[in-house]
Amino acid sequence: MTTNRKVILYIATSLDGYIAKPNDDLGFLSMVEQEGQDYGYDNFVKTVDAVIIGRKTYEKVISMGFDFPHADKDTYIITRTARPNIGSVKFYTGNLKSLVDKLKSANGKNIFCDGGAEIVNELLKDDLIDEFIISVVPILVGNGTKLFKDGRPEQKLELISVKSFDKGLTQLHYKRADK
Amino acid sequence: MTTNRKVILYIATSLDGYIAKPNDDLGFLSMVEQEGQDYGYDNFVKTVDAVIIGRKTYEKVISMGFDFPHADKDTYIITRTARPNIGSVKFYTGNLKSLVDKLKSANGKNIFCDGGAEIVNELLKDDLIDEFIISVVPILVGNGTKLFKDGRPEQKLELISVKSFDKGLTQLHYKRADK
Repeated sequence: MTTNRKVILYIATSLDGYIAKPNDDLGFLSMVEQEGQDYGYDNFVKTVDAVIIGRKTYEKVISMGFDFPHADKDTYIITRTARPNIGSVKFYTGNLKSLVDKLKSANGKNIFCDGGAEIVNELLKDDLIDEFIISVVPILVGNGTKLFKDGRPEQKLELISVKSFDKGLTQLHYKRADK
Repeated sequence: MTTNRKVILYIATSLDGYIAKPNDDLGFLSMVEQEGQDYGYDNFVKTVDAVIIGRKTYEKVISMGFDFPHADKDTYIITRTARPNIGSVKFYTGNLKSLVDKLKSANGKNIFCDGGAEIVNELLKDDLIDEFIISVVPILVGNGTKLFKDGRPEQKLELISVKSFDKGLTQLHYKRADK
């Protein structure tokens, strides 16, 4: 049985398609920071109650001195190395498709894919992302970690909305064309 | 002396950043074809009177059975192998920066960079593109020729406009932030 839960990627990239500069440098994101403007993030987060995130991205967040922001949600850190759970935060070493199938078979809000690129590309290889909310930052960074890597199947999309903001950020929202 | 002539990239990519699938397959562009809708191309072309295009892209156009569409413009096919001119179409084996400097020092309309990826990335290494008009086609193609390659300098941009169209194409228009 499959419910209507959707896997949604919500992420920011440079115009040239990088989610980070070399050494996981996210400094370019600061150019679109604006007081009182969260680019819809808080409203988006209210629509999800489960999170899938890669181990490296998780550790990057922790290393920046933040408390893990999704500790209140059913969270899966995708990793190759088993570790004990931290409350609702689970370290998941199994198959990604099995995880998504399991989450989709249970009732709940939507499922947030919070990166990084490795997880996004693994999910896309099995056509497991239902919606894409991509914030394009007005910069060419030139080097770093590309959001989309070679070697995925073709997937047609349907544009849901486009929003642009004062700082030049453009937010593109797509869903899979066949859903 | 530098005039106000600008080098403008006008190009279409998939959401995952490819300008062609493997073997220069441009078939995915047909999903946004619509009678009477040229996504501003004709109006754009009226603003340019010079064209810079890579040799491979030029030969792709010719191989598709078309007459070369810019034969009426001051056109430079960037190549490593000298060939005789064909009317206003010149095969250019020199330095790209010198070419752009020469064009910008003369009066005229804007200069159209018509791809492909090799030329775009060479121009960007020397910070030679002034405006970007990028049409994002609503598809992940998964493999092929990326518009932006690693190894370019950082370049901040300013968003000029965003337009979306019935078929789900989104057209992003940027200029260099420092101009």
